[in-house]
Amino acid sequence: MYRSNTCGELRLSDCGKTVTLAGWVQRARKMGGMTFVDLRDRYGITQLVFNDSDDSDLCARASKLGREYCVQVTGVVNERESKNANLPTGDIEIIAKELNVLSESVTPPFTIEDNTDGGDDIRMKYRYLDLRRPTVRKNLELRHRMTILIRNFLDSQNFIEVETPILIGSTPEGARDFVVPSRMNPGQFYALPQSPQTLKQLLMISGFDRYFQIAKCFRDEDLRADRQPEFTQIDCEMSFVDQDDVINLFENMARHLFKEVRGVELPAKLQQMTWHEAMRRFGSDKPDLRFGMEFVELMDVLKGTGTFSVFNEAEYIGGICVPGCADYTRKQLDQITDFVKRPQVGAKGLVYIKFNADGTVKSSVDKFYTPEVLAKVKETMGAKDGDLVLILSGDNANKTRVQLCTLRLEMGDRLGLRDKNKFECLWIVDFPLFEWSDEEQRLMATHHPFTMPNPDDIPLLDEHPEQVRAKAYDFVCNGIEVGGGSLRIHDSKLQEKMFGILGFTEERAMAQFGFLINAFKYGAPPHAGLAFGLDRFVSIMAGLDSIRDCIAFPKNNSGRDVMLDAPSTIDQKQLDELQLKVDLTEE
Amino acid sequence: MYRSNTCGELRLSDCGKTVTLAGWVQRARKMGGMTFVDLRDRYGITQLVFNDSDDSDLCARASKLGREYCVQVTGVVNERESKNANLPTGDIEIIAKELNVLSESVTPPFTIEDNTDGGDDIRMKYRYLDLRRPTVRKNLELRHRMTILIRNFLDSQNFIEVETPILIGSTPEGARDFVVPSRMNPGQFYALPQSPQTLKQLLMISGFDRYFQIAKCFRDEDLRADRQPEFTQIDCEMSFVDQDDVINLFENMARHLFKEVRGVELPAKLQQMTWHEAMRRFGSDKPDLRFGMEFVELMDVLKGTGTFSVFNEAEYIGGICVPGCADYTRKQLDQITDFVKRPQVGAKGLVYIKFNADGTVKSSVDKFYTPEVLAKVKETMGAKDGDLVLILSGDNANKTRVQLCTLRLEMGDRLGLRDKNKFECLWIVDFPLFEWSDEEQRLMATHHPFTMPNPDDIPLLDEHPEQVRAKAYDFVCNGIEVGGGSLRIHDSKLQEKMFGILGFTEERAMAQFGFLINAFKYGAPPHAGLAFGLDRFVSIMAGLDSIRDCIAFPKNNSGRDVMLDAPSTIDQKQLDELQLKVDLTEE
Repeated sequence: MYRSNTCGELRLSDCGKTVTLAGWVQRARKMGGMTFVDLRDRYGITQLVFNDSDDSDLCARASKLGREYCVQVTGVVNERESKNANLPTGDIEIIAKELNVLSESVTPPFTIEDNTDGGDDIRMKYRYLDLRRPTVRKNLELRHRMTILIRNFLDSQNFIEVETPILIGSTPEGARDFVVPSRMNPGQFYALPQSPQTLKQLLMISGFDRYFQIAKCFRDEDLRADRQPEFTQIDCEMSFVDQDDVINLFENMARHLFKEVRGVELPAKLQQMTWHEAMRRFGSDKPDLRFGMEFVELMDVLKGTGTFSVFNEAEYIGGICVPGCADYTRKQLDQITDFVKRPQVGAKGLVYIKFNADGTVKSSVDKFYTPEVLAKVKETMGAKDGDLVLILSGDNANKTRVQLCTLRLEMGDRLGLRDKNKFECLWIVDFPLFEWSDEEQRLMATHHPFTMPNPDDIPLLDEHPEQVRAKAYDFVCNGIEVGGGSLRIHDSKLQEKMFGILGFTEERAMAQFGFLINAFKYGAPPHAGLAFGLDRFVSIMAGLDSIRDCIAFPKNNSGRDVMLDAPSTIDQKQLDELQLKVDLTEE
Repeated sequence: MYRSNTCGELRLSDCGKTVTLAGWVQRARKMGGMTFVDLRDRYGITQLVFNDSDDSDLCARASKLGREYCVQVTGVVNERESKNANLPTGDIEIIAKELNVLSESVTPPFTIEDNTDGGDDIRMKYRYLDLRRPTVRKNLELRHRMTILIRNFLDSQNFIEVETPILIGSTPEGARDFVVPSRMNPGQFYALPQSPQTLKQLLMISGFDRYFQIAKCFRDEDLRADRQPEFTQIDCEMSFVDQDDVINLFENMARHLFKEVRGVELPAKLQQMTWHEAMRRFGSDKPDLRFGMEFVELMDVLKGTGTFSVFNEAEYIGGICVPGCADYTRKQLDQITDFVKRPQVGAKGLVYIKFNADGTVKSSVDKFYTPEVLAKVKETMGAKDGDLVLILSGDNANKTRVQLCTLRLEMGDRLGLRDKNKFECLWIVDFPLFEWSDEEQRLMATHHPFTMPNPDDIPLLDEHPEQVRAKAYDFVCNGIEVGGGSLRIHDSKLQEKMFGILGFTEERAMAQFGFLINAFKYGAPPHAGLAFGLDRFVSIMAGLDSIRDCIAFPKNNSGRDVMLDAPSTIDQKQLDELQLKVDLTEE
């Protein structure tokens, strides 16, 4: 037996017991004829005491223990003289009688503490040491706890978890598929699923009624901030349901999770906001509702009411009222102006109006507008004395709104309003079914080609497809899209029409989705589904800045696992067996 | 609302209620002015009645419903006149008032019934229809139930489920790796894991203490009977444990599963049998203990005691006693002889001795042995009058034992002794650490290169590695290896020695396992683990002949998904982006 107890469980009531612990040396220090060792395992830290006067040989051995040695110690539980109220085990210590070094350690490349001295790169290379830090381990424990809660919740709602294959066929978004050459079928490739979308729809056609899967998904694309080439979805699908059924069920799941994990009670009914409203009020389909500063449109007030040509030529003018910030300095205002002019934001400039606490007004457009117009702005914005109004304008309303959204979030950050311990969740509904792609010069499916149009809008499909609303919904929390889904088309004729609008030839549609189109011919039930991003959900619950922090072995921005040194070249023998040649001439 | 109830829940106590059901038409039949429809969903079957005298239009529409139409029906629950005791809903019927066809169906290519008329190939192509058959669906429901039970059991034992990556680096058994070209890193490849072995060992080094994962694993090899290119493991690892700790814990898990799923109580302590004993008594490291017919070695009795040169030259002679089969006919004995001479078994011949019920003896070697020798065989075998003794011999003891094992299982099948509702589990322990590979002309690791040698045998490592026992264990049920694992080496020097014996140069070991060898330098804990094959475990619980029957979308023997038509060729554009060329000239 390697241990009688863990390093997290002994208390005052255990005093006098002889125990054996095993774990890692967090630190060892000598103090007046004694050696103190903090022994760490997953469950906690316990202090060991080696007394020179008891056993000088043992104490000498203990004093040589280095950081991260893995040791086993037998001793007697004893009440501490100077208790440590910060540790659950802080009332006791172990008077050590035996010491067994299970495995030595060379000096670790960074300190194994929550506030480590290791940079990102070195911690990724030695991820197995990084994972020893309690803060990292706790994120993965939380992830485990959440998946257990999710599975048991869905099981209680009659969902069945079904494993769908990882080696599937290529899909229309195939450009982003990872492919896998088959040795048994030379020249042919499997693809890794970007999601189990079509397979879960087949399971509905199979009558599985309620399916879920915590599923690995894969996307071979340039990794923007906080994307991973492999990620995990809580993937769900239900038959014989309407939009409200799906929303209610998964709202209850989210409520259960927030309560169990964070002790937070979500409202009895979450807000549902249309996509148009979200864009108008927050310039985003995933608004952060932890704070206000809603957009106020100022076209009527500022266009044509003064001599500022930028506004007079604008298609959109909108502002946010930043409470209590009229005393911002020139330097602060310049910083914010620089922020909105960064290429990632793309605004041409920023207009500010300070409604000072003393009732005076100072703005960057004083020379273009009368005080009366500025007073009208104050009224329209609902600004008070002491508030700062920030205004953006542009010739494309939605693009300007997106810029204003970025500014709003920046101001939220600056004012400390985006509290990681506060959770504001809502549903966004009534997404447009299609969006125009400038790149492809055609309509694309906003979600995917299987999304059901709003039945009220079906007459618009032929003439005004861009006005058609989808039966689609996103679950948004704190400005992050955590989940999303839709009702699916279950009628093969409507599905064919959708493919037509999306520019698929019948041949291409059949080649790519023939199995699904055929399946619709055998009594497809009405069905709908939803997928949550598990990595994002855990990140929000844990208050993490990056999904990487809740992934055991994440990849970096180049898609590399620097610990495993993957991907890497493979043997010529393997390439020959696959009948493949690497041809880097185009580099 | 699409339905008020499922097709499996209405009972006599619901009579008089107006309900709405939705599901598929199992069958529709007219009978004297009425149309009866069996409506099916995942939860059951409910009988609908359309009465011509109530609503002739509705009844006419109902009579046109085809098999597998997806419909919604509203009506009143009514007590049946002729009850069906075989159906949970058999006491009631629904007097239909409204009928809504949600989706029509063309005629399915095979009948959607447990005893279908569809062959394997057509059912695989239309797997989404095959999955509608209750027997197939129940296998997947059982799989779900088992994974829920497993996860909650392991959670209760402080295990944490950690997702390890699917895109990893290539390993030494790399020849069987599926590889994935990376677009961001042209010319480089990820590999899909054959198991998370090294990653779970890293998690132990990280101090995770108890890890598990229900993990997809991948192997690109010629598919023997009942293998799949992707399969699922219940993968586990623990720190600070010895072999007995691991065996106890997972024995308890298995006991919990058998009890919950099948109502079967496993013995309080499962038998542990050494590998040598299993080979000697059953010729297999996965003996089927549901029946006897243990091997009896007959070297002393038959070698050199008669004129049969085959036996006199043999290195092994062994027999099984088939109870009550002395009356086998010439034809039956010929069949068995042909069976053992098939190339898959490989025996040169079969000797039989019939100890007839009347006390006479008839054997295929009568002319070589005296009656006294045959009587001695009878005594040694423990045969009774009426029993049939079957004997194989050969010049390689273990090969002959494997042949005799195949014969024993065949006789078990013929005698109906391999009852699918009986479960005989045991542990096989003390495996040899190495096995000789004729093909590679060197020692190979029986399990994998991280397996701990038995400490008692470490002195043998240099001179007699073939005699070294491993700290490894397999969980066997009904002749199938359901799980297996081992203590791992946690000492980097011992690990290096292992690589040396296995013929790895230091360079090759570092190239392939550098990350793990390095990790061992930072205080690696003693650790051990085990993995169960989920597909096999479910198959045994469900009494299935093939693991395919508990996989939603399995692949065929060529590794193809015939429903998705995967793998397939991909666009030249995709190949170009990956900077790969397909070169089929070697075909």
